[in-house]
Amino acid sequence: MNYRMVFRVIGNLLRVEAGLLLLPLIVSFIYKENLYYTYLIAIGILLVLSFILTAPKLKSRKIYARDGIVIVGLSWILMSFFGSLPFLISGEISNFFDAFFESSSGFTTTGASVLENVEGMSHSLLFWRSLTNWMGGMGVLVFVLAIMPNTDARSMYIMQAESPGPQVGKLVSKVRLTARILYGIYIALTVILIAFLTIKMPLFDSICHGLSTAGTGGFTIKNTSIGYYNSVYIDVVITVFMILFGVNFNLFYLILVGNIKSALKSEEFKTYFAIIAGAIILITINLVTSGIYQTVGQALRYSSFQVGTIISTTGFSTTDYNLWPAFSKWILILLMFVGGSAGSTAGGIKVSRIVIMFKMVVKEIKYNINPNRVTSIYFEGKPIEHSVGKGVYSFFLAYVLMLLLVTLIISIDGMDMLTNFTATLSCMSNVGPGFELVGPMGNYSGFSSFSKLILSFVMISGRLEIFPILILFAPNIWKR
Amino acid sequence: MNYRMVFRVIGNLLRVEAGLLLLPLIVSFIYKENLYYTYLIAIGILLVLSFILTAPKLKSRKIYARDGIVIVGLSWILMSFFGSLPFLISGEISNFFDAFFESSSGFTTTGASVLENVEGMSHSLLFWRSLTNWMGGMGVLVFVLAIMPNTDARSMYIMQAESPGPQVGKLVSKVRLTARILYGIYIALTVILIAFLTIKMPLFDSICHGLSTAGTGGFTIKNTSIGYYNSVYIDVVITVFMILFGVNFNLFYLILVGNIKSALKSEEFKTYFAIIAGAIILITINLVTSGIYQTVGQALRYSSFQVGTIISTTGFSTTDYNLWPAFSKWILILLMFVGGSAGSTAGGIKVSRIVIMFKMVVKEIKYNINPNRVTSIYFEGKPIEHSVGKGVYSFFLAYVLMLLLVTLIISIDGMDMLTNFTATLSCMSNVGPGFELVGPMGNYSGFSSFSKLILSFVMISGRLEIFPILILFAPNIWKR
Repeated sequence: MNYRMVFRVIGNLLRVEAGLLLLPLIVSFIYKENLYYTYLIAIGILLVLSFILTAPKLKSRKIYARDGIVIVGLSWILMSFFGSLPFLISGEISNFFDAFFESSSGFTTTGASVLENVEGMSHSLLFWRSLTNWMGGMGVLVFVLAIMPNTDARSMYIMQAESPGPQVGKLVSKVRLTARILYGIYIALTVILIAFLTIKMPLFDSICHGLSTAGTGGFTIKNTSIGYYNSVYIDVVITVFMILFGVNFNLFYLILVGNIKSALKSEEFKTYFAIIAGAIILITINLVTSGIYQTVGQALRYSSFQVGTIISTTGFSTTDYNLWPAFSKWILILLMFVGGSAGSTAGGIKVSRIVIMFKMVVKEIKYNINPNRVTSIYFEGKPIEHSVGKGVYSFFLAYVLMLLLVTLIISIDGMDMLTNFTATLSCMSNVGPGFELVGPMGNYSGFSSFSKLILSFVMISGRLEIFPILILFAPNIWKR
Repeated sequence: MNYRMVFRVIGNLLRVEAGLLLLPLIVSFIYKENLYYTYLIAIGILLVLSFILTAPKLKSRKIYARDGIVIVGLSWILMSFFGSLPFLISGEISNFFDAFFESSSGFTTTGASVLENVEGMSHSLLFWRSLTNWMGGMGVLVFVLAIMPNTDARSMYIMQAESPGPQVGKLVSKVRLTARILYGIYIALTVILIAFLTIKMPLFDSICHGLSTAGTGGFTIKNTSIGYYNSVYIDVVITVFMILFGVNFNLFYLILVGNIKSALKSEEFKTYFAIIAGAIILITINLVTSGIYQTVGQALRYSSFQVGTIISTTGFSTTDYNLWPAFSKWILILLMFVGGSAGSTAGGIKVSRIVIMFKMVVKEIKYNINPNRVTSIYFEGKPIEHSVGKGVYSFFLAYVLMLLLVTLIISIDGMDMLTNFTATLSCMSNVGPGFELVGPMGNYSGFSSFSKLILSFVMISGRLEIFPILILFAPNIWKR
């Protein structure tokens, strides 16, 4: 392990986090909140640590796959840890486990909250929450790569470990340029979204909701989430953008460089939209026939928002879907498993993995019919490599095992079975709300500190697709 | 596809089923029930069909893996179909979907029932239900192999497809002899169990419960299952034997031939008992601390019975575990996933697969640490073959996908989410009871005919470990 290089990257990351804290500091000045010391103390702590970590001279810049994964796993834990400082120093969240949960939930774009009354928070802290959603969406380390000088080919390991999906490629030959292009598209889309929102929403609300929509995070500044505004316009804008941010950003790049055709041909893209359309239609029919909504229009409005918010793993809400019939609720749960596309800001298993897994089952059926005929699985027109297939399998396995074990662990708190299960699933897939007590009208405040800590790690594991966190518990990783 | 050979085996199977029906016929005479015509008509139908299917002269006895799997899949569907005849002809279950569900539930050793009042049934039909549990446990085709003349090496394909577990071997070089040894052990253990039960139970009850315990089926002749007897002796005897029938029968063979040491060294055996012990201890603590039972003794009695009945996928009950705290209930759900050992009469994913899956996750972690070092997974002291590992993955994948999709489909009936999920899980793993409406005090009568049909196929898929049923839906399987 190249410890000095690990420290260097983490040191840079903390400096970026210190820089980010300047933004809520500005917000606190604008709103004349007496919180500037909060941010200054936090920035001070981060800068001192960053200075210490980056002080040792590098003997070598070489990192291996292992170092890259460790960097990513450690970075996310530390970033979430220090991201809780503003909550703690200001005293607006006084319990450490609550603050760590809220911060992890922000950076991992989960959007689950322990706050029973968000509207009672200071503006600058609400802004900080939404900003963590936004930074976590595209990845903070990708941002570090975009701004760090002298990134070399090996930093690809870092990008691979932070970016979601079964296979991560570069848009262009240089990692740094790829990172910059991705952030460029991300910023542009976010600005467009905020502009759309300002038409019917106050500026501050537009910025906060724009940031947390872009990151598919789902932190909101209202107790009743987007339902507060009760505006068809806002519902439509946010639905469309949540779904867009669940699309692989490589496709936006393809569109940018004029290659729209191959963007629209993407198998994952088509499947993603087919799932969304299918889910909306089925839920709308179910809601109308069961008499939950009087008109098809109403049913369509609420079903599309909820489908968009769950599959993109954003987690906003405009209605209490706890009251929907079981069939609609199970569709939402399946969407929580699925999640968005690889290379998007969304969480979950990812559409591409789901497609590959279905093809694997078909392949196994074919193998049973004729064990001697070797068949390959094609995805996006190319045969998938053995290592990718193996990776999909192990990810799914680890995902389900972790889901079941954590559900069991947090059930010690004594809440009902659906709350335990959907809280864990929702945290794993970085959605936010679950069902019952953690439903759209509930929150995570009822869990014990121990469960909150576990769920914080589950959110980080989900965001990094499990192995970068699991690997930290392997004893021999810390050998030189 | 060697159709004539497929017909031949299925014809033989139907003849065996006709022979089995002689037993409830005798019971109906003993109890002077006016049902003898029921069994005679059913026997008549089966014999005529069997005659037609076995009439064509075989051109060749050769079968391929594919034929073996198709034989097993079709056999189980047809056997369950014709097993419903006694219920239908007698009129004691008048709806076809109910009767098919009950019969599938019997042969697959699930033990889920649509009957709201079992005690209202005739003795001979109660006996038939338990007998289907027993036959399904070891496998009807294994029985056919044991008695059929001229079985050759290729019939191993049939045994492999019917026997549970990731890898099925022969005890001795000949398939027929292996089948006979397995049935010998099975019969002996069943007789011993019945003898134990007669000490505190009427003979008829002992035979029925002996048969359905041995098959880890769980059909009972009392509305309140084993709880009816309220006897510590009976609870202990049944707990011990349920757990025993969840052990790989190869180990009993090893013990028989004097090789106790290597039987006790089995990794699956040790893990199976470790899981049982762990689950009992955790549930007992949870039940006592939450005040469900007053004494540790009582908590231990009910927790061990319920752990034994769920992990062995039997499905008897002595108490309404719906009333237990969430932690205990989640342990039971995890045990439903796990199931018994490979090569036992139990269902579920199987302990050996669970062990292999955990090792696969560890291997993936190691791979992430050092991608260049190739490591093998060892199970029972031997490196597992690539095809076995792949088989475990695809099985788990198909299992979870099927579980989630079927849960969604049956949720159309409008029952609560836990009922849908645990009903499907319980049927997939051939347990029987689930939670809420399908809990130990409930039954499956509330589902629609469509859901009952789907769940019947789910039970058969679970018993045959999915692919022999999925394969029947592949269009090109029916080509010559």
